[in-house]
Amino acid sequence: MNDMDIIMQNARAAFDSYKTFSGIQKASFLRKVAEEIEAARETLVNTANEETNLPLPRLNGELTRTTNQLKLFANLVEEGSWVEAAIDTADKNRTPPKPDTRKMLLPVGPVVVFGASNFPFAFSTAGGDTASALASGSSVVIKGHSAHAKTSALVFGAIQKAIESAGVHKYTVQHVLGSGSTVGAALVQHPLTAGVGFTGSFSGGKALWDLANKRERPIPVFAEMSSINPVVLLEDTLQKNAAAIAKSYAASITLGMGQFCTNPGLLLAVKSNALNDFIVSLGKEIEQVLPQKMLHSGIHASYSKGLEAALIQKGIEKVAQSEKQPAVEEAFPTIAKVAAGIFMTNPHFREEVFGPYSLVVVCDDKNQLKEVLSSLQGQLTTTVMGTDDDIRDNSDIIALQTTLAGRIILNDVPTGVEVCASMVHGGPFPATTDGRYTSVGSTAIKRWVRPVCFQGFKDDMLPDALKDNNPLNIWRIVNNEWKKGSI
Amino acid sequence: MNDMDIIMQNARAAFDSYKTFSGIQKASFLRKVAEEIEAARETLVNTANEETNLPLPRLNGELTRTTNQLKLFANLVEEGSWVEAAIDTADKNRTPPKPDTRKMLLPVGPVVVFGASNFPFAFSTAGGDTASALASGSSVVIKGHSAHAKTSALVFGAIQKAIESAGVHKYTVQHVLGSGSTVGAALVQHPLTAGVGFTGSFSGGKALWDLANKRERPIPVFAEMSSINPVVLLEDTLQKNAAAIAKSYAASITLGMGQFCTNPGLLLAVKSNALNDFIVSLGKEIEQVLPQKMLHSGIHASYSKGLEAALIQKGIEKVAQSEKQPAVEEAFPTIAKVAAGIFMTNPHFREEVFGPYSLVVVCDDKNQLKEVLSSLQGQLTTTVMGTDDDIRDNSDIIALQTTLAGRIILNDVPTGVEVCASMVHGGPFPATTDGRYTSVGSTAIKRWVRPVCFQGFKDDMLPDALKDNNPLNIWRIVNNEWKKGSI
Repeated sequence: MNDMDIIMQNARAAFDSYKTFSGIQKASFLRKVAEEIEAARETLVNTANEETNLPLPRLNGELTRTTNQLKLFANLVEEGSWVEAAIDTADKNRTPPKPDTRKMLLPVGPVVVFGASNFPFAFSTAGGDTASALASGSSVVIKGHSAHAKTSALVFGAIQKAIESAGVHKYTVQHVLGSGSTVGAALVQHPLTAGVGFTGSFSGGKALWDLANKRERPIPVFAEMSSINPVVLLEDTLQKNAAAIAKSYAASITLGMGQFCTNPGLLLAVKSNALNDFIVSLGKEIEQVLPQKMLHSGIHASYSKGLEAALIQKGIEKVAQSEKQPAVEEAFPTIAKVAAGIFMTNPHFREEVFGPYSLVVVCDDKNQLKEVLSSLQGQLTTTVMGTDDDIRDNSDIIALQTTLAGRIILNDVPTGVEVCASMVHGGPFPATTDGRYTSVGSTAIKRWVRPVCFQGFKDDMLPDALKDNNPLNIWRIVNNEWKKGSI
Repeated sequence: MNDMDIIMQNARAAFDSYKTFSGIQKASFLRKVAEEIEAARETLVNTANEETNLPLPRLNGELTRTTNQLKLFANLVEEGSWVEAAIDTADKNRTPPKPDTRKMLLPVGPVVVFGASNFPFAFSTAGGDTASALASGSSVVIKGHSAHAKTSALVFGAIQKAIESAGVHKYTVQHVLGSGSTVGAALVQHPLTAGVGFTGSFSGGKALWDLANKRERPIPVFAEMSSINPVVLLEDTLQKNAAAIAKSYAASITLGMGQFCTNPGLLLAVKSNALNDFIVSLGKEIEQVLPQKMLHSGIHASYSKGLEAALIQKGIEKVAQSEKQPAVEEAFPTIAKVAAGIFMTNPHFREEVFGPYSLVVVCDDKNQLKEVLSSLQGQLTTTVMGTDDDIRDNSDIIALQTTLAGRIILNDVPTGVEVCASMVHGGPFPATTDGRYTSVGSTAIKRWVRPVCFQGFKDDMLPDALKDNNPLNIWRIVNNEWKKGSI
């Protein structure tokens, strides 16, 4: 038995115990995890600051987001209706007799979570993947990210304290470090692993997904991978608000040195004087943004290489870069532009350059803009900036955008992902491996479950969520009617 | 442009039109399809009888099931709450300001549906896959099954009449015939195809799933493939009800000559005199079952070959066969038994033999029975037969069964799949390619959709399901509370 076997057998034993916990018990555990992380805030934030170059205010905000996420899932499972209980009662007088059937979602477990480098708290060790998996009733094995290994181990330490005080199985959460392509791959391939959460590069996510599909029993891999988050700038708003849009977009493009999954990497507009003014304003804003260190040297090298490769493409024109030359490992904020006709003939322009870079695509007319939109692959987000008049005249563009991404934003920037029931942080391939799910918000829990139907069971044998008198007081579909009381 | 391009571009054009239809409009279309099929009942049933060897009463019942399925989906989309609308309203006073976000499910379309051979109506041309896809708002391309090509064309004729009278786009449903490995594969590989429904063999389903995963943009394939539907017979009930259980199981094993996905192919029990009595009774019942023709010569050949291969395995013992020798293309109803120790060492016994065959696995004790259960792959169903005392003493076995299948049945036979909101006709791989979904019942619609979040949209730009005043009067999650009224 090798190390992976021991880890996964422990995870399976923990799952068999933890999955029997009630929503109230799971909520209590999740809140304890949040408390322990809060108690370790100073050490955690300082360590992450040393490891990731991210500034303290950002890290403090992200830690709060992380504990809020844990509390959101605690509230969700304490309330309990998320299990999608459906009940159809028997009808013995029908020919043939109709059986009693009752369905609910049950956890699949154990789940493997890969920490993401760009959010050392909110998308890493105790981030949304872990929180949603624990909320579902699954045990979790975390593959900590090597770019913030100390932070990851400290967060895991906080989780361990919560495991002890909550009295859940010792191995409900485990933590391993090591290479993604060896340790990570072995975890995904292990027969006891039932699901995988990942946030990172396309090559990394796709490789894990391929491994999972080649297993004797394939398992779902929810990989959030790459997105250039196209933004459509409509004519009337450019005429009226060019300077304001330039200001907010320069900030969004360079927020966290562009290391956000929802970074706006592509700005589309029809050529006009207003667009020219906007591009000039955007360039001036970008010139004022100071270069900063990126998360780690690998990401910096990748950005520098990606930027260089982009800027040598035929027909591209550099608009502006930060006035200050970047120091070692600092990113160089950059805006470029290209004519849509050239964009359409060169697939390189559709590739993500992860960092503070955005490309303006200048279209001859609205039809060409629609062609560009139609040529794009699946995205996490797409945005439209427009006045009421713009919107009225461009419903066809918005309809097209609705087919392109998981989230469509009006008159705002795509960076900033609200953690709530209506969020979709997901999108058609290759933005994610499975556009039917979200990795942010309460429905992220649906990634770790499957429905099970109980037929002909007596009331005392049924899970509480399906009992006649509805002891959990949850919303259920009973004989095709939504109701909360007993049957 | 080849034929496939023309078909799929027509399907895409139809999707762009049909997806804008309201729930009431889609319901009206689905009911018209049901009416036209009902109007053609006599011709349809007689043609299917000629093509499939299935008896008229069964075909009449199946046709009624098919029109009921269409009406169930009509009711579902007319009511409208299936879109899982969730709304979180803005909070401008929060730091940072909280945006307005609203989510709902939208169809992915176009969908390709493969007709199944074993249900020429209910799982074929206008069966559950087509009905649920049309209900979601997707257009459908049907690959008719060659074993009932005339029936399939006639059902499509009925659909075409409904298309005309409902005024939906001409190509909302299209019908093609041809080989699964060429025409079928080409449809799955076409860039415009967005999802696939399939019911059939493991090799067929897995091949389509592999093709879909190798696409530049992978798409979901919902293949319902193979299941041996293990049944656990507990001790007390065998002592008290052996004869009755033998009678109902002999009927279930040979229902429709065993050509049901939920056919009970494996009966597990601990050795006892009561089990011996049961096996004798089951054998006597099977001897009385008359051989009948199977669906087509291919299925018959496959059953004969599978049965022969099973019966020559080391340690297997033939218990009984029909007293009447089968004529050409008739199946030979057969029961065999094997000791659990031998079963565990030979993976051949876990393979599905599609037809009127079941294997009794005799276990030394309860632990060995649990070992056998644990060794099985994912199943559509698993059943437990037991008295109240049995159930009390064997909760560990039922817990194990809950991890094994999509549906757990107590004291009934697995054949017979109720079409309702709480049904799960699905299960862990290899029962299906995606155990998170069902192909029977109203939630089958969830296979053809993905969630989309609208952020910062004004009320008049939002889909009706997400508007403030809730014009569709559907259940929604508004700021984490379930409610039906306006915001």
